[in-house]
Amino acid sequence: MVNVAIMGHGVVGSGVAEVLLKNSELIAKKAKNEIRIKHILDLRDFPEIPYSDLFTKDFNDIISDDDVKVVAEVMGGLHPAYEFTKQCLMAGKSVVTSNKELVATYGAELLALAEENNVNYLFEASVGGGIPVLRPIAQCLAANDLYEVEGILNGTTNFILTRMISDGMSFEDALKMAQDLGYAEKDPTADIEGHDACRKICILAALAFGKHVYPNSVYTEGITKITSADAAYADFADCAIKLIGHAKLLDDGKCTVAVYPAFVSRKNQLAHVNDVFNAITVKGDAIGNAMFYGPGAGKLPTASAVVADIIDCVKHLHARKYLSWDDCDADYIADHRKDTVRMYVRLGYTGERPAVIESITSLFGQIKVLGRQGEPSDELAFITPFASEEAIFSQLGTLKNCQVLSTLRMLD
Amino acid sequence: MVNVAIMGHGVVGSGVAEVLLKNSELIAKKAKNEIRIKHILDLRDFPEIPYSDLFTKDFNDIISDDDVKVVAEVMGGLHPAYEFTKQCLMAGKSVVTSNKELVATYGAELLALAEENNVNYLFEASVGGGIPVLRPIAQCLAANDLYEVEGILNGTTNFILTRMISDGMSFEDALKMAQDLGYAEKDPTADIEGHDACRKICILAALAFGKHVYPNSVYTEGITKITSADAAYADFADCAIKLIGHAKLLDDGKCTVAVYPAFVSRKNQLAHVNDVFNAITVKGDAIGNAMFYGPGAGKLPTASAVVADIIDCVKHLHARKYLSWDDCDADYIADHRKDTVRMYVRLGYTGERPAVIESITSLFGQIKVLGRQGEPSDELAFITPFASEEAIFSQLGTLKNCQVLSTLRMLD
Repeated sequence: MVNVAIMGHGVVGSGVAEVLLKNSELIAKKAKNEIRIKHILDLRDFPEIPYSDLFTKDFNDIISDDDVKVVAEVMGGLHPAYEFTKQCLMAGKSVVTSNKELVATYGAELLALAEENNVNYLFEASVGGGIPVLRPIAQCLAANDLYEVEGILNGTTNFILTRMISDGMSFEDALKMAQDLGYAEKDPTADIEGHDACRKICILAALAFGKHVYPNSVYTEGITKITSADAAYADFADCAIKLIGHAKLLDDGKCTVAVYPAFVSRKNQLAHVNDVFNAITVKGDAIGNAMFYGPGAGKLPTASAVVADIIDCVKHLHARKYLSWDDCDADYIADHRKDTVRMYVRLGYTGERPAVIESITSLFGQIKVLGRQGEPSDELAFITPFASEEAIFSQLGTLKNCQVLSTLRMLD
Repeated sequence: MVNVAIMGHGVVGSGVAEVLLKNSELIAKKAKNEIRIKHILDLRDFPEIPYSDLFTKDFNDIISDDDVKVVAEVMGGLHPAYEFTKQCLMAGKSVVTSNKELVATYGAELLALAEENNVNYLFEASVGGGIPVLRPIAQCLAANDLYEVEGILNGTTNFILTRMISDGMSFEDALKMAQDLGYAEKDPTADIEGHDACRKICILAALAFGKHVYPNSVYTEGITKITSADAAYADFADCAIKLIGHAKLLDDGKCTVAVYPAFVSRKNQLAHVNDVFNAITVKGDAIGNAMFYGPGAGKLPTASAVVADIIDCVKHLHARKYLSWDDCDADYIADHRKDTVRMYVRLGYTGERPAVIESITSLFGQIKVLGRQGEPSDELAFITPFASEEAIFSQLGTLKNCQVLSTLRMLD
């Protein structure tokens, strides 16, 4: 029998307890060992819960208990999760987590600490909720030289964008609906401003390319500026709008990483990922591309990933070593504005439409003009040919009698 | 350094050699060990190949070489692959394979033999080509009580069906195109009659539910009867036609497994899996559902999966034990005709259309009538309400003045 502790009894933590208790027999078979929850750390009281005797408010009960071999850190936030995780690893306990903020910020350090202490630090649940993605990248695609990862990494924003495109809702109404359904927090900033997706693409890039990517080095744009007009033009262009986390390894060894909403062609699998689902596409020299799809959040899906990591730790109490990456140099992240892209542009203009289109065409070459129902006579939307994002913005700046209302990257 | 042997130098075998040689540095880093190809078994001569000195025509060179720890069996077919695999496992060598026919037929026996000899028998490449799917099911979803697996498991038929739906091609023309492009064999029987998909759903069901499923116990229907008329009605119903491998664990512990072409609603991710791509959906009590998508065949994608298994064996020269299942009882497979389904039905009829529709409605309850361009006046296509497949067929048999031209299951 192996004893485990759970730190945090919120949505994910209670799900971890539920899955471990409900599927205990099946899990014992898979882990070749019985798994027992010995402590649950939470500052709140849960008197009504059948397993209320397991609760403690004191981290020392866990760290000083030599019987506890595996700790699930599902408390979230940087502190005290960081300090608790370090202490557990140094005490020879493996740690599994769903805490993307912690992994994205201190992952390289914590992985090194785990290796030093010959224990595991696993975090499948930190990206894509229940979707198996980190272990498959690290193990199943191990023969590949991976060069690109991109995906829909945040369920809340994907729900909002799906409602805007499919049901014609405004951003505000869709956000309200997400909050009413419990998909969005009261303070939705981390989701709608892209910070959550940013942490996840940092973890994916680190795992795929072997070097830590710090969230504060990543250009991050949320979805708050997307309007119903943009959604209508997207539909006209046979695209969906999705919040994309994107990371690509360049020929010079640097990496471009960014989070932004994009027009995604319906020929791309990612365009069909709707509601709170997430999906991650990985590209490598042998595999071509593979995609992983599933519920990106939620109590039981996320618990499913945390418990899978617990099982892995129980089967291999010493370091598995398939997850690891190095710290990065200061100049590792390249300027994403140098990326070669096509862009959707929505302009307000004064003057004659044909003359405006002609001046745009003379700047960019052939553009694809879009339309929408109820399009105002002083609005023009189009898709540029390929160029660097920087060049496109600089050319847009030279347009006379035009005001740029929206710009979004295209993803084919 | 770990020595490996490759048995078979066809499409997959040459891909395995190519990936091992091309990405040797990266692979050594991931495997924490250098991997060297010591022998390649093939009866043909490859004098022009840079590594021609590695070839042998004699299996004894591999089996008697104690330096060889891992053998990739990529020769295909049942014999002598079965005998060679057994001998390798008994000699203490781990075996990795892409041979779905062998795994589907002798998997339970070979897995037991591997365990007895404390070595691995891994076969990620046998399902979904390069798509990481077996290891994620076994490891990442280990906390789940899995109850259903379904997917598009054959790239050749998916290419043909995509051409029929998207480009309005006939089955014959689409098959010819697939052959011209090298996606279909000269003798395409195993693909178009569903045998290849059948082997793969057997392997998936065995892994997900823990009991071997023998291909000859599985109802298998190919795509040769699909017509352009069916494709047009599918489009009208906002569906694609896909060849689906389906396995579901029933409440009584039995399992229903079948392969058949189906109308797949465009609301389902599987409807958007086109051309030679494959995708597998897995459902479990905690995860809800997850989908794995990617290239289902091809030299390098399949080699990517084989080499990942080689790396895993090199990291764990003794048995990993995460892949295993038991043999099944004779009555494990339930009758798939008892499955509750909706069905697409295309009829030829004589008499008055309203009268025919009325007689059908009186049998089935509310049906959804479909249409297509150029629909003959003596043809009627519709979708039934939910009922057992058996009941639907039996009711269709009672219809007067009607001839059933096509029936296909619906997948929502």
